[in-house]
Amino acid sequence: MTLQALMADLAFLGDRATTSAAVLAHHGQSETHIRSRLPDLVVFPQSTDEVAQIAAACTRHGVPMTGWGAGTSLEGHALTPFGGVTVDFTRMDAVLAVFPEDMLVVVQPGITRERLNEELRATGLFFPVDPGANASLGGMAMTRASGTTAVRYGTMRENVLGLEVVLADGSVIRTGSSAPKSSAGYDLTALMVGSEGTLGLITELTLRLHGQPEAVSAASCAFGDIGAAVDCVIATIQMGLPMARIEFLDVASVAACNAWSGQDLPLMPLLLVEFHGSPASVAEQAGRFGDIARDYGSTGFRWAKAQEDRTQLWKMRHQAYPAILASRPGATAIVTDVCVPISALAEAVEETRADIDASPIPGPILGHVGDGNFHAILLVQPNDATELAVAKRLAARMAERALRLGGTITGEHGIGMGKLGYMAAEHGAAWGVMGAIKQALDPAGLMNPGKLVARK
Amino acid sequence: MTLQALMADLAFLGDRATTSAAVLAHHGQSETHIRSRLPDLVVFPQSTDEVAQIAAACTRHGVPMTGWGAGTSLEGHALTPFGGVTVDFTRMDAVLAVFPEDMLVVVQPGITRERLNEELRATGLFFPVDPGANASLGGMAMTRASGTTAVRYGTMRENVLGLEVVLADGSVIRTGSSAPKSSAGYDLTALMVGSEGTLGLITELTLRLHGQPEAVSAASCAFGDIGAAVDCVIATIQMGLPMARIEFLDVASVAACNAWSGQDLPLMPLLLVEFHGSPASVAEQAGRFGDIARDYGSTGFRWAKAQEDRTQLWKMRHQAYPAILASRPGATAIVTDVCVPISALAEAVEETRADIDASPIPGPILGHVGDGNFHAILLVQPNDATELAVAKRLAARMAERALRLGGTITGEHGIGMGKLGYMAAEHGAAWGVMGAIKQALDPAGLMNPGKLVARK
Repeated sequence: MTLQALMADLAFLGDRATTSAAVLAHHGQSETHIRSRLPDLVVFPQSTDEVAQIAAACTRHGVPMTGWGAGTSLEGHALTPFGGVTVDFTRMDAVLAVFPEDMLVVVQPGITRERLNEELRATGLFFPVDPGANASLGGMAMTRASGTTAVRYGTMRENVLGLEVVLADGSVIRTGSSAPKSSAGYDLTALMVGSEGTLGLITELTLRLHGQPEAVSAASCAFGDIGAAVDCVIATIQMGLPMARIEFLDVASVAACNAWSGQDLPLMPLLLVEFHGSPASVAEQAGRFGDIARDYGSTGFRWAKAQEDRTQLWKMRHQAYPAILASRPGATAIVTDVCVPISALAEAVEETRADIDASPIPGPILGHVGDGNFHAILLVQPNDATELAVAKRLAARMAERALRLGGTITGEHGIGMGKLGYMAAEHGAAWGVMGAIKQALDPAGLMNPGKLVARK
Repeated sequence: MTLQALMADLAFLGDRATTSAAVLAHHGQSETHIRSRLPDLVVFPQSTDEVAQIAAACTRHGVPMTGWGAGTSLEGHALTPFGGVTVDFTRMDAVLAVFPEDMLVVVQPGITRERLNEELRATGLFFPVDPGANASLGGMAMTRASGTTAVRYGTMRENVLGLEVVLADGSVIRTGSSAPKSSAGYDLTALMVGSEGTLGLITELTLRLHGQPEAVSAASCAFGDIGAAVDCVIATIQMGLPMARIEFLDVASVAACNAWSGQDLPLMPLLLVEFHGSPASVAEQAGRFGDIARDYGSTGFRWAKAQEDRTQLWKMRHQAYPAILASRPGATAIVTDVCVPISALAEAVEETRADIDASPIPGPILGHVGDGNFHAILLVQPNDATELAVAKRLAARMAERALRLGGTITGEHGIGMGKLGYMAAEHGAAWGVMGAIKQALDPAGLMNPGKLVARK
């Protein structure tokens, strides 16, 4: 009855409000093993005003509302464990304005990062945050996404300058301004970025752009062990070398990528690096990095100076996930990420490697090591409860290890449904403060319930 | 009676809780024209536990509590319009730990930025945020301070990685971790940075450090008009040149600095720039900047390659405030700052310049133009109500102009008491959201009342 009353209020959406079984099923899927109840209704708004009306109607009827971008979350952020309405933003995917002098772009939340960069190509500017998946910008903001380029350009935290947000009651607020910085009150932009749809629905984003680099140079290099690779990363950062990317692949990841992409990278722990700048500065940076890498015993250095070679290198990196999935035929994955202080990175990676090696399942490790961030892709046979339990215990120990080493249970994937159980351990009393903020902004608990904060 | 009961609860502080008239008077002063009622009591805690006990006691007795760092706020942040307890952090000023590999330092809030950098000198690292004044790190975090180097190294928003905070009820939370990034829940660090003591009292900060640059080069260069100087800044940013500082001084500021420092800079709109990097990259950046500046008609280029020359240049810039004050003997100042999108900077500065020129009072303009941030130092005769009213109207129009141009009422000075009246205009309904967060975390409204949020 509630649903019918809600649908009557949303009649203005016409066929952009649907209970079609196929649509509900699509919005009940996730990229990983996480599953939940399906939504009761999926809506496809086309404007902020429509989103505001949807939120107000959901609040009137006490129905949960959950945003949906591109469905690429790895922790079940867009699933609906309590049913309700999924607000699919794929029809709000416009570039609203580009301000080249201010190096800003204003977009709707449904646009994907690849299409955004296609639309920006002619401007000489680009949006750098690159989580691998072709995620939506709204989703990327809501999970505080980052990826391969965060070491140079920052995460969504640094690259979202302002937002338009629809709150639970349907009111619309704007956070931030178009000025590069501000000291005018609480940083609501930063509060919303990473809030996983639990405080509001983003309907517009103002994003920082960066100049397309004049020159780019990339390389892969191999190390005798994980510790040497990580020590090389630390030394590079301390030298102040402005790397654009510095990625780590363990031997299992390299093997999977070789098999998938037809490459012949040495079966050793690898770093993939990239430098951006003027031709002279890129050459200097590359030379200095080469010196450092050799100090740490690096071999098998391969420079990718031509655009074609770089494209191949990063395509391989971006396809690491399907490559690793394919390395165990028929498998599904628990993809888990943690982030630790750089000084603890070697210990964290080596302990995790040993823990997985001692288990019955495979789990390649790779990551954005310039940020202290790494992932394990734990491969389990679907419907094998024993393997799933093993993988969950491995992931739990990985999270506990990160906390013990002064880190965090997730560097970039977020909490969603998958990591709710570790929030108390990471934040202690501060998790209660998050709950108080949630309560203040969404007293009925209708915005993406079951995620990030403790359920009342 | 309330005060006596509170003091009884705080007896454990001994003579570190005082009602001495001189101490109260000192904590009722501000750097600017803003004045308020004195505090009733000043306390000097030495530990987080003492701060927690103070907060709990204040809450029990319904007494306001206001933090005090170095007293350098320009908007009356540390004043006590409702009396109560001033919590002076000058005895909590230790460097608690340095983690060179992670490029992090953990400090207490009372340490000043100059002393922090002295203590870091031997490590090869430094803390870059430089608001000019020798402020405390706790105060800098609470106002989201920035300054001359923000264009390269970011503001306090980017350089505070984690906090320990005492809440109104005396509970202690930790925000953030020692990992370089995280997606684990609401960004409470960012919420606290810039909250001006209205949500909690910072008792510990984890700060990002940066490598001391291998090579540094600085220069001053003159332009025919403000527009040419600003267009040069825009072009430099769009080229992706990684400037460490890019500062603007108008003619009145240059004249004041010349008189104060015995320099002979040309009486024209000036840019002061600095580049950090390897010797080769600094040389390349400087050369490229020189080319751009000449394209915009710059003359009077002076390079300061020697450490001594650079020290003199930045000393002059840091002493611009006393120099400008001295340019009108006996005057006091309204120091106001706004921040606009870079594309609107020339218009904002030129309109402001014309507005001040049409008024009866002097008001040099200078600023961190790489951030779109500039200041007017409006010089008024003390106790001249007419001049003060003129200055306040000029400051109000400057704030309104910034908002009209898509900017913010303050880039780095914060709201405090001075800018509360503009918050509704900048934030609209979002100011109400700030009030809801305040209400959730400090329901009795005891933490720095009269600042940032609407008074209930």
